[in-house]
Amino acid sequence: MRKINVGLIGFGNIGCGAVKILQQRKSLLAQKIGIEIAVKKICDKELTLKRDVTVNKDCLVREADEIINDPQIDIVVELIGGINPAKEFILAALKKGKHVVTANKALLAEHGNELFSVASERGKNIYFEASVGAGIPIIKSIKEGLVANKFNSIFGIVNGTSNYVLTQMSRENCSLASAIKSAKLKGFAEKDPTLDIEGIDSAHKLVLLTYLAFGRIVALKDIFIEGISHISASDIAYAKDLGYEIKLLAIVKKEGNELEVRVHPTFLPSEHLLSSVDGVFNAIYVSSDLAGELMFYGPGAGQLSAASGVVSDIVDLTQDIKAGLFRPTLNSIDDSSIKGLRQIGEFENKYYIRIMAVDKPGVLAKISGILAKFGISIASVTQKERLKSQVVPVVMVTHEVKEKNLRGALKMIGKLSDIKEKPVAIRIEGV
Amino acid sequence: MRKINVGLIGFGNIGCGAVKILQQRKSLLAQKIGIEIAVKKICDKELTLKRDVTVNKDCLVREADEIINDPQIDIVVELIGGINPAKEFILAALKKGKHVVTANKALLAEHGNELFSVASERGKNIYFEASVGAGIPIIKSIKEGLVANKFNSIFGIVNGTSNYVLTQMSRENCSLASAIKSAKLKGFAEKDPTLDIEGIDSAHKLVLLTYLAFGRIVALKDIFIEGISHISASDIAYAKDLGYEIKLLAIVKKEGNELEVRVHPTFLPSEHLLSSVDGVFNAIYVSSDLAGELMFYGPGAGQLSAASGVVSDIVDLTQDIKAGLFRPTLNSIDDSSIKGLRQIGEFENKYYIRIMAVDKPGVLAKISGILAKFGISIASVTQKERLKSQVVPVVMVTHEVKEKNLRGALKMIGKLSDIKEKPVAIRIEGV
Repeated sequence: MRKINVGLIGFGNIGCGAVKILQQRKSLLAQKIGIEIAVKKICDKELTLKRDVTVNKDCLVREADEIINDPQIDIVVELIGGINPAKEFILAALKKGKHVVTANKALLAEHGNELFSVASERGKNIYFEASVGAGIPIIKSIKEGLVANKFNSIFGIVNGTSNYVLTQMSRENCSLASAIKSAKLKGFAEKDPTLDIEGIDSAHKLVLLTYLAFGRIVALKDIFIEGISHISASDIAYAKDLGYEIKLLAIVKKEGNELEVRVHPTFLPSEHLLSSVDGVFNAIYVSSDLAGELMFYGPGAGQLSAASGVVSDIVDLTQDIKAGLFRPTLNSIDDSSIKGLRQIGEFENKYYIRIMAVDKPGVLAKISGILAKFGISIASVTQKERLKSQVVPVVMVTHEVKEKNLRGALKMIGKLSDIKEKPVAIRIEGV
Repeated sequence: MRKINVGLIGFGNIGCGAVKILQQRKSLLAQKIGIEIAVKKICDKELTLKRDVTVNKDCLVREADEIINDPQIDIVVELIGGINPAKEFILAALKKGKHVVTANKALLAEHGNELFSVASERGKNIYFEASVGAGIPIIKSIKEGLVANKFNSIFGIVNGTSNYVLTQMSRENCSLASAIKSAKLKGFAEKDPTLDIEGIDSAHKLVLLTYLAFGRIVALKDIFIEGISHISASDIAYAKDLGYEIKLLAIVKKEGNELEVRVHPTFLPSEHLLSSVDGVFNAIYVSSDLAGELMFYGPGAGQLSAASGVVSDIVDLTQDIKAGLFRPTLNSIDDSSIKGLRQIGEFENKYYIRIMAVDKPGVLAKISGILAKFGISIASVTQKERLKSQVVPVVMVTHEVKEKNLRGALKMIGKLSDIKEKPVAIRIEGV
């Protein structure tokens, strides 16, 4: 039986998971694909750490070069994360004629153009199933399962930490801080959860989903990113009253000949399937022109789940290697009907607005007047319970409005003397 | 650019869809895979019918043999449905060295062993993505995306017609007959919807899901199949009261060293994601040991949706052909830890039971006595509103009980003089 050698760079949590699976499922995989997959070398800076998998000491190395320069290694798996030196390792591996598997969404999001173009020049493949939704086969599904489709939009809950926090706030009616504390206790959030809570991790994954569906790597700076740190328990409660759930969504949408690419908390109708995706689970809702509306759901993180995606990439590469297949373009047909990215000010959405106003006659008239001036029409207004402070939340839902008009109006409203906090606005989708 | 020729047998609804996609996406697909896919011949008994796609008249033929015996055709797509002559056509095509794409779940369910073994002998692949969940890439996901996983269970809503009927009954609080009528009006049910309503179509798909997850073709006669024709509006209403939805599920579950394979209406907790799958949509909920709990959701039928799956199979075959890849075993590793199928009497479930009893003292005591005699313990009992007829529904939820015990008890209860209808029992899952 033919043997294909894998070199693993990064022997952390997911790396251990991948080795475990390749050990335990060695004969199952060999039966399925007719190839023996051998982990020839594993590289990590720290080799003395106790790990939950046992490997032959001979295969452990401290320098990535020992893998990159090993002519017997066909597939390099990069699992160290971060930009440098992961990028250098992957580039060097490609240049040495190796195929690459990675779960490094930050790296691909920031340097995808360079990495994919070097891979293409060298006739090598970079696979990255575990970089979005861990073991959910979303990359393969978009690339291969929906190969003939054009896409209208993708809505993703792609960050388990922030989804856990929002779910917790909704279920326990608690504050963001207390939900984050709970997430940390359960191991669902890192010590510093900024990347998750502020939507950066979701944006990295969105870059990859956009690449798969529309064929282009969008620069992070061109994506509108808003996290969930300003979401309050009361917004979640009002959302429910109005028939919505709040979810942090990564959205790419084709609107006319432009692409909207954005990450932000979103009001979703409670009956929308994405609204039922709770806790650390991820789900990617894909609107395609042939296969219709699809959703892919599963755990968005976890050692074995992510490693399952990594191993499926390795298996696919063994088939490519056996066949001499190079698939550079399968995920990179740039949709030429797209002329550019829509600027945030031009986005059109319905909005939920919460304005904390002094409860006295004439305030609502002033607010309404400003909204009217900006051409914003209101679908519903509710003045919530009077608080001790005499400041009451005025909750509104707008009809479709351009973002720049909404921003203009809220800025002006925020300056009124009777307005006591910066007005909150959350976009409404799926209605 | 290399050209690969496809021959299509069956120019009906899905066939037209496939041709439409292959025409309209010809250059997109060629860019992606570096191969031109050409529909060289299309066979149908009826060639004068007006169709919603225009093809060159020269490629239309009346006899499948003209495709099967054409040495320039590499891929035969069978879309006529039914057992004969579809089976003969596929066997002949394989023997002539062609790869096969089919959406024919009934044929694969009933003759899969023979067809897959002939394919294997000849080194040819049979792909069947559109046979379960139309364009949802569920087959590819289980086979390739989850290639390293072992499976605990699969729960599928795989028949859009029956799911529409149950959704309609639940939303409109209407009878089965009226929901079926509505389904027919909307084109969601055939004139004779027996195969859908009685669970046969779901069972066909379940055979294929079981094959993919556990490596064996289970005979239809060994599957417990119960449809939804006995479900009443009141059962759906009581389900809601108890916090459940009723769904027709196709279930395969590994229990110890046995496999449970069954199709039946099921009480699912309302908060289970499958409970939110409404109307003609399908969803397959997969429990895997590495990637965890996954769900794949989308339209379960429709011309372009099914054709999207067919075309993805054709594209995969072009890659196999280019590479000389034969993948016989990818979906046929028989799990040797499975010793056999569990007999229906040995299934263990919680149950919802509805007994129509005359409302007089002592009846509940008789019922409870019989249940106790069969070792069935009750989690809750509700005696519903008194009806004019003095017959009231007694609604019970049991703890886990063996099916044979439950059947024995219900048979005895049904014979009581105070019981006016055959007792209804519905299995509860996912709790």
